[in-house]
Amino acid sequence: MALEAKNPYENDEFKSDETGEVDTELTEIDHVAIAVYDLDEAIAEHRESFGVLVDHREVLEDEGVEVALLKVAQSYIQLLTPTRDDSKLAAFLEARGAGLHHVGYRVDDCAAALAAIVAAGGRAIDEAPRPGSRGTTVAFVHPKGSFGTLIELVQENPGAGH
Amino acid sequence: MALEAKNPYENDEFKSDETGEVDTELTEIDHVAIAVYDLDEAIAEHRESFGVLVDHREVLEDEGVEVALLKVAQSYIQLLTPTRDDSKLAAFLEARGAGLHHVGYRVDDCAAALAAIVAAGGRAIDEAPRPGSRGTTVAFVHPKGSFGTLIELVQENPGAGH
Repeated sequence: MALEAKNPYENDEFKSDETGEVDTELTEIDHVAIAVYDLDEAIAEHRESFGVLVDHREVLEDEGVEVALLKVAQSYIQLLTPTRDDSKLAAFLEARGAGLHHVGYRVDDCAAALAAIVAAGGRAIDEAPRPGSRGTTVAFVHPKGSFGTLIELVQENPGAGH
Repeated sequence: MALEAKNPYENDEFKSDETGEVDTELTEIDHVAIAVYDLDEAIAEHRESFGVLVDHREVLEDEGVEVALLKVAQSYIQLLTPTRDDSKLAAFLEARGAGLHHVGYRVDDCAAALAAIVAAGGRAIDEAPRPGSRGTTVAFVHPKGSFGTLIELVQENPGAGH
């Protein structure tokens, strides 16, 4: 009987079950991102309905979007609107209308988190981490391989603007 | 000239701008909810990719869904799957596939938050708060009037299961 007993650590999946150890770990839901047509209107309605206020606002030229971050505890509601017609976000609004666009997961090390996700079968959109809003380092992960959910990994950097 | 000066507090909208005071306030992004086809597979992949573990799992008979809550700091990733073909979630999966389903906003007082949202032009799905998972009190707000985003207001109750 003893000879038939399996080593519980010979299978990586089982090992992960036993120890819960992985290369990366989420430290916070960084943000939920909502695509909207009119950023000022959305900001006003979020203030009126929920008492949440703008903590940071920025145009991301490369992506053709303007973002407003409304702080909720240690997380943000990120309101997003396109700044030009050829941005991916404009195509999203055209296809789906306003609504939930992606979720941001905060990690300590964006590069390590991205590598771990790819190793686990996920698909990177950004092959390497790049600058995000409020001085963060970010990488997007494709919805295919992530349960239809567009994920942004977010690493906060010490000394960067919030 | 003095007679022409407007009282900045005579207009409710302006008053809200000035003071930031509202009837309700979000205390936390309670959860992001992701609709999936296979709950066990989704739990395993979230553990493998992100190191997040199941904190609570429950079948909500009335809604025809099973939920798993994976804890991230003070928030949760909520994985959702239908338990029967006639649930709303089954229809969602049929129409949209797996993906972001709704966002949960934590509030101190669900009834007050719901009233404030309706007063601000939002549309309630639940006319009154009702029991949610993990002993919470919840109410859903319709995506129409909330930037295409299905919102669940979540009030944690002292002494309830987590």
